[in-house]
Amino acid sequence: VRVEILAVGTELLLGQIADTNGRWLGEHLAAAGIDSHFHQSVGDNRGRIVTALRVALARSDAVITSGGLGPTQDDITREAIAEVMNVPLVRDPELVARVEEFFAARGRAMPPSNARQADVPQGATVIDQTRGTAPGLICPLGHKVVYALPGVPHEMEEMFDRAVLPDLDRRRRDSGGMRGVIRSRVLRTWGTSESALAEALQPRIDALDLAVGPSTAVTLAFLASGIEGLKVRLTVRAPDDAVAAELLDAEEKEVRAVLAATFGDVVFGTDETSMEQAVAELLQERRLTLGVAESLTGGLIASRLVDVPGASVWFRGGVVAYDSAVKYSILGLPEGPVVTEDAAVAMAEGANRVLGASVGLGITGVAGPDPQEGVEPGTVFVGLSLPRDVAAPGGTADPGASDPSTRASGRTSLVRRLRLPGDRQRVRQYAAISALDLLRRTLLTAEKGIEGPTLG
Amino acid sequence: VRVEILAVGTELLLGQIADTNGRWLGEHLAAAGIDSHFHQSVGDNRGRIVTALRVALARSDAVITSGGLGPTQDDITREAIAEVMNVPLVRDPELVARVEEFFAARGRAMPPSNARQADVPQGATVIDQTRGTAPGLICPLGHKVVYALPGVPHEMEEMFDRAVLPDLDRRRRDSGGMRGVIRSRVLRTWGTSESALAEALQPRIDALDLAVGPSTAVTLAFLASGIEGLKVRLTVRAPDDAVAAELLDAEEKEVRAVLAATFGDVVFGTDETSMEQAVAELLQERRLTLGVAESLTGGLIASRLVDVPGASVWFRGGVVAYDSAVKYSILGLPEGPVVTEDAAVAMAEGANRVLGASVGLGITGVAGPDPQEGVEPGTVFVGLSLPRDVAAPGGTADPGASDPSTRASGRTSLVRRLRLPGDRQRVRQYAAISALDLLRRTLLTAEKGIEGPTLG
Repeated sequence: VRVEILAVGTELLLGQIADTNGRWLGEHLAAAGIDSHFHQSVGDNRGRIVTALRVALARSDAVITSGGLGPTQDDITREAIAEVMNVPLVRDPELVARVEEFFAARGRAMPPSNARQADVPQGATVIDQTRGTAPGLICPLGHKVVYALPGVPHEMEEMFDRAVLPDLDRRRRDSGGMRGVIRSRVLRTWGTSESALAEALQPRIDALDLAVGPSTAVTLAFLASGIEGLKVRLTVRAPDDAVAAELLDAEEKEVRAVLAATFGDVVFGTDETSMEQAVAELLQERRLTLGVAESLTGGLIASRLVDVPGASVWFRGGVVAYDSAVKYSILGLPEGPVVTEDAAVAMAEGANRVLGASVGLGITGVAGPDPQEGVEPGTVFVGLSLPRDVAAPGGTADPGASDPSTRASGRTSLVRRLRLPGDRQRVRQYAAISALDLLRRTLLTAEKGIEGPTLG
Repeated sequence: VRVEILAVGTELLLGQIADTNGRWLGEHLAAAGIDSHFHQSVGDNRGRIVTALRVALARSDAVITSGGLGPTQDDITREAIAEVMNVPLVRDPELVARVEEFFAARGRAMPPSNARQADVPQGATVIDQTRGTAPGLICPLGHKVVYALPGVPHEMEEMFDRAVLPDLDRRRRDSGGMRGVIRSRVLRTWGTSESALAEALQPRIDALDLAVGPSTAVTLAFLASGIEGLKVRLTVRAPDDAVAAELLDAEEKEVRAVLAATFGDVVFGTDETSMEQAVAELLQERRLTLGVAESLTGGLIASRLVDVPGASVWFRGGVVAYDSAVKYSILGLPEGPVVTEDAAVAMAEGANRVLGASVGLGITGVAGPDPQEGVEPGTVFVGLSLPRDVAAPGGTADPGASDPSTRASGRTSLVRRLRLPGDRQRVRQYAAISALDLLRRTLLTAEKGIEGPTLG
């Protein structure tokens, strides 16, 4: 079964909203191992919806439309489908009653226009609504089918799972088609470039190309995700979930080995794991607490950390020292320049002291657009203050780093200078994730007792 | 000229990335007054790209493809276009030299595969690259045309502006087509619901429907933008820019009058103006500085404020008091419960005092998932501490608010209790923008000398 997705709505064509439904459907069809070769978007125009439906039915076996089932005169997906089916629309009195009930339950009378939502192309089956007023439709056309779903994402998603996917699965079985599944896993990395990643993994990709079996295949792809780093996506096609999981596990091991040998600790997590979650896990394992002192990032690091559920266990808080005076008064920096290695370390130590955290992180720099204290935009200093037994033994290897030095009994600190690309907002966001990555690598390195982290 | 957009890339069909290029192109075509009735997405498969191109050329006058111009074997948009044009691909030695130069300038040799990027369908014109290696193509097919652009957004956008739009404009003139423009303006609101907004503006929408002229039309639409509030989009079609601007100005006045009469100060800005920019403007006009003390929002408010260029003039900094101990130690709260009206006020006063800011904002509450101090998730308290001459004279009107009271000589404070919907992350984000909105309305109210703000 090849499924085409047709998103209906003029606001999509005008770029006023993104086609998140198309993306969601594509992702969930792929996860179910169902092919989808074409997506279309079309405006709220009956003739053009008809055209798009005819094109879709000519090249695909099933079409899922989203949108255009509402109560207003703009909502004409029903009419267009009836035209393509060459049948009349019939108003279903039971559906009218159900929409009336929906409004009654909210203490309101049904506006007369909502009765249109009970119009059903003759021969179509209704998908009941559980969350709103627009019912969905299953519309057979010979051995092909059009599924009409509402455009409201959570209504669309619920109907897809409950009614569309089972129907597609039945059609797939009936047609004796592929019974397998497609599953994928994402390795998330920070600290390397897309081309370097591709170069390192090319031999593995070539080997996989040669290893495609009759019912299994493994592929690798790269996705640049901006401030969330680079993703390596492992995708497998397999007869069932168990085989898919086995293949994914084996491939993850291969890829991790290649990446570790080439770049070190660049993989910070899998799938939806964020950098802050990776940091949270390391801190909790080591029973450490964290406090941050931020200048150019202005609270970005703290707010990312607080996004992690249960952050109160290990996150103490932060000081956003945007004005220099706040750096002197609250964090106790000596009066003087504040965009320096020393200032970053002093901020980290201030965070440790003032916030009562075992690990202090300090970050200062210039987001731009103008230089500050003669320092160019994109220059960022990240300082860490840690208990001595947590920090890496020995020095650090990269030339941009100063030697860790003991500032207080039993504690040590380190600092990194970063050069980050982009405009003001990008520099701030890159700075935030880079600082968290430095902390992550430092904690990892400490555990392993090897040399300190390197960071671009 | 009717333009169809064709996004090429299997990752789009699989939902791995969103089709941001399609959205961007739709928005910019609409802004130029060029119709676009269909969008398609297709995978990296030559036969299917050919099918999609043929469908597009049958129902549109011009096609813009994005993606599939890279150096790898996956990149086959060039081949597919040549097949549809029924011409061979010819390698352009000058283009090869240019790609080689691109690599040479970065101290690298061109990988042999990149030579493919110099393949041009016979009869096509090259759009030079200024940012990457993949040149764009203008491919005539009779009186129709296919524009092939790279998939990297900033390369695509630059080529569209520089080469595609002028070419489309010339075609439009040659065909004697519509010479008008479509322009729109967005009014951004916070503090009301989509249905209330729609209800209030329905009479105006009905009046506009009756007032469509031969060359002009004005329409209103609503866009729910989640944590960025609700947008009212005014769109006009007019013979030229000057008339469009006049119509937009007149309509903005009408809509603002309706909204002000129904809801009060719900419009916080137009187009790309963010809530933090609106706040920044009011603070600067009044020569005030701001400091924030955040609990559940964890730095979100501070980081939004720092996003405003020039924030250092009026933003002093913040304290992220996530752990209660930090509230006591840095902000000087009395030991005791920290999710209360009093705590929010004390945090605002602490921000004022500790950060040396003329206006202090304090926010505390429960993001969830679990209750804290017996307070339900979604409950948030926002406190403000202001110089007396800035704060609203007289009391506040809404029942949820406590009376402003003088806490220190020449200063006053107020507090609001909010009930916010959604999960942990949504509550935090709603809390951040609600707190900024409270500050905005308080500053506005003070200026007008009327009663205090009301806030849901």
